[in-house]
Amino acid sequence: MDTTLLIDEVRLTPILIADPPLLNTQGVHQPYTPRLVVEVVTRGGVTGVGETYGDSAYLALAPPLAAALRGRPVSDVNGLFALADEVCGDSRAAGERAAGARVDAGGLRGVQTSDKLRLSVVSGFEVACLDALGKTLGLPVHALLGGKVRDRVEYSAYLFYRWAAHPDGGERDDWGAALDPAGVVAQARRFARAYGFSSFKLKGGVFPPDQEIAAVRALAEAFPGRPLRLDPNGAWSVETSLYVAEQLKDVLEYLEDPASGTGPMAAVAAGTDVPLATNMCVTTLAEIPEAFARDAVQVVLSDHHYWGGLHRTRELAGICRTFGVGLSMHSNTHLGISLAAMTHVAATVPNLDYACDSHYPWQSEDVITTRHVFEDGHLTVRDAPGLGVELDRDRLAALHRRWLDDDGTMRERDDAAAMRKAEPGWATPPIPRW
Amino acid sequence: MDTTLLIDEVRLTPILIADPPLLNTQGVHQPYTPRLVVEVVTRGGVTGVGETYGDSAYLALAPPLAAALRGRPVSDVNGLFALADEVCGDSRAAGERAAGARVDAGGLRGVQTSDKLRLSVVSGFEVACLDALGKTLGLPVHALLGGKVRDRVEYSAYLFYRWAAHPDGGERDDWGAALDPAGVVAQARRFARAYGFSSFKLKGGVFPPDQEIAAVRALAEAFPGRPLRLDPNGAWSVETSLYVAEQLKDVLEYLEDPASGTGPMAAVAAGTDVPLATNMCVTTLAEIPEAFARDAVQVVLSDHHYWGGLHRTRELAGICRTFGVGLSMHSNTHLGISLAAMTHVAATVPNLDYACDSHYPWQSEDVITTRHVFEDGHLTVRDAPGLGVELDRDRLAALHRRWLDDDGTMRERDDAAAMRKAEPGWATPPIPRW
Ligand SMILES: [Mg+2]
Ligand SMILES: [Mg+2]
Repeated sequence: MDTTLLIDEVRLTPILIADPPLLNTQGVHQPYTPRLVVEVVTRGGVTGVGETYGDSAYLALAPPLAAALRGRPVSDVNGLFALADEVCGDSRAAGERAAGARVDAGGLRGVQTSDKLRLSVVSGFEVACLDALGKTLGLPVHALLGGKVRDRVEYSAYLFYRWAAHPDGGERDDWGAALDPAGVVAQARRFARAYGFSSFKLKGGVFPPDQEIAAVRALAEAFPGRPLRLDPNGAWSVETSLYVAEQLKDVLEYLEDPASGTGPMAAVAAGTDVPLATNMCVTTLAEIPEAFARDAVQVVLSDHHYWGGLHRTRELAGICRTFGVGLSMHSNTHLGISLAAMTHVAATVPNLDYACDSHYPWQSEDVITTRHVFEDGHLTVRDAPGLGVELDRDRLAALHRRWLDDDGTMRERDDAAAMRKAEPGWATPPIPRW
Repeated sequence: MDTTLLIDEVRLTPILIADPPLLNTQGVHQPYTPRLVVEVVTRGGVTGVGETYGDSAYLALAPPLAAALRGRPVSDVNGLFALADEVCGDSRAAGERAAGARVDAGGLRGVQTSDKLRLSVVSGFEVACLDALGKTLGLPVHALLGGKVRDRVEYSAYLFYRWAAHPDGGERDDWGAALDPAGVVAQARRFARAYGFSSFKLKGGVFPPDQEIAAVRALAEAFPGRPLRLDPNGAWSVETSLYVAEQLKDVLEYLEDPASGTGPMAAVAAGTDVPLATNMCVTTLAEIPEAFARDAVQVVLSDHHYWGGLHRTRELAGICRTFGVGLSMHSNTHLGISLAAMTHVAATVPNLDYACDSHYPWQSEDVITTRHVFEDGHLTVRDAPGLGVELDRDRLAALHRRWLDDDGTMRERDDAAAMRKAEPGWATPPIPRW
């Protein structure tokens, strides 16, 4: 084995990035949200980058894994899982305590098990290793995954109900508020104009269902025939979900996580022809057999962070293909490193059945030198070595400085706490909410 | 993209290799069996090798795919499937005619669909591409699949009822006949001594079940506590399968394809605690959902030829891991190229639950310069670039010459035709046979 591929150093940089006041059923995005940037440096002097969640539960798991990586080849990504099992044992408990000690904004990400936390951390390391390997070999990451089967990957506009500004500070943008059908349509028009997106997803679960039905109806009128989606993050009862599905069945491409849990999702699926998509009901391999057997979901929204990296995402794609379940991609707040990783793996999967989600247009800050540009709603798959992105060290240092300077309130994503700045009595709503 | 990775030339060499008179429920192996050797040559002057089935159905599909490969990068293996769909259309019909025109010895390999024929051809090209890519980059094939998770791969002794010699010609070996429990035990002892195998599989379906039960009992006495397996290739009824399972439940690691078809396998599985393994009931992704839903199989024996290559084998492993189904590897008559490929992919799969099968010890001929050596029943995973094997061009030419000189009788594997040399009235037995 070429010793230039051996890992010499791993750098972990927690950062806080600006996030607009986007609403969801649990509350609102905070002014800043944590991410963790992983750098893997080889003996050959090549640096690979990865990105994952930055809440303390993840930060607790990363250092022992980083330490254990030294001296191992960057090509050895299958071995990361057993390594993480081995070295994250103690810090796993710490991570669980950290995760359990707060209101679980992570509920939006499905079950929050220690295995899944660990996989999300591994994914940041896996992507960094693949980036370093690709850069060393002169090959793009997609070639390390067997090669692209498409030259560009389609993304969907990710519409949010939102305020014009955070109630207390944070960066300001010029998008203005969107709190009714007209506001949602205006946002969609700007997305379509600026990025060329031709399908639209609305984050729901914020207002009573009839208001959200009206917003989707308004989108359907403004963009006739375009694929539309609505995602209330499991906020509805089975009955409400079926009501919404009935009202929107002629315009929805799919309904995303209308209800919470495999049983309720299966009950909804049994009562409508509208396909159900999920990034909450099925977010781990362990949840697949029951969910597929009960036909609870018809589209799985993969997320390479949840699933443990790009190789695991490809496995998930194979499972979906085998069982005739649709596949697309979920997104949480993320930067250009993860968008590059998403695009590379998406390019290699034959059964990418729908345009992928991405929060990226909402992120005004990044840690790469040249930001991704959507054209006609697509990203061109990069053929440059590795991920094809370059770290902007000045930006990284500045965003890390923000993390260091934070008094601790932003270091955990907590959408309910952010909501309490505007509504002091706010508590995370019960499930189902409606 | 580095132009040295582009494919300049593809060479297809059908060969005939010596095969001993091994018995199975359909008949006996012919003196020679066809294989196809695939060479992919890059613009950088690197040659990668692959190996697959060589019957005419496969040979009909390979040339258009070979022609279409020119100018494509060897790293682009995910694209081989769509490419094969596209270019093998016409020859696919020819392949089906060739496959359908003869007694289907391929029945031992499960369903024989045009998709599966095509996947077996693709697998030969995929392995050759990965070998060329690895040699170009200086990386072993396992590193191109995310890296090994073990340093050696365990194989099982593959015991056969057999004659001392073919009734009409062919190469002779010194193994002698094995037609009763004592013969099977003697064969197993020699395997254990020569290769260190510690688990044993007997190919059954040859004699009435009580004789085969006696042979497995004799093995259990000779090798107490060792994992034992029996594989009648679907020759038994559900009732017979359950009888054998009951008789051998204390010594069998698993029972392999006792009955034929998902329904009968599910019925057997429901009636015994002995796990059922398969390389016949589940040999394509399409067969998985029903077989897993009905719990018809507890161990899938993967075969990178059937499943379309090493990447697809890894996907299959992910599916098995997700559904709690065991995984090991099937083998047909093959040479050192395929054994290298099996070992590389097996090394990357965390859930390799059982020692793999290999016919390799029965093959006296090979097309590589240095044959694989089993130590303690294991093969060490090679870290040399590519597959870590080198083509012996003189041997390849000699075996191709044998194929050219053949009057056509050996170019299709036909175990029933071979049996008729000894028993003129032989016809492929009905299923179930017992
Ligand atoms: Mg969602
Ligand atoms: Mg078998």
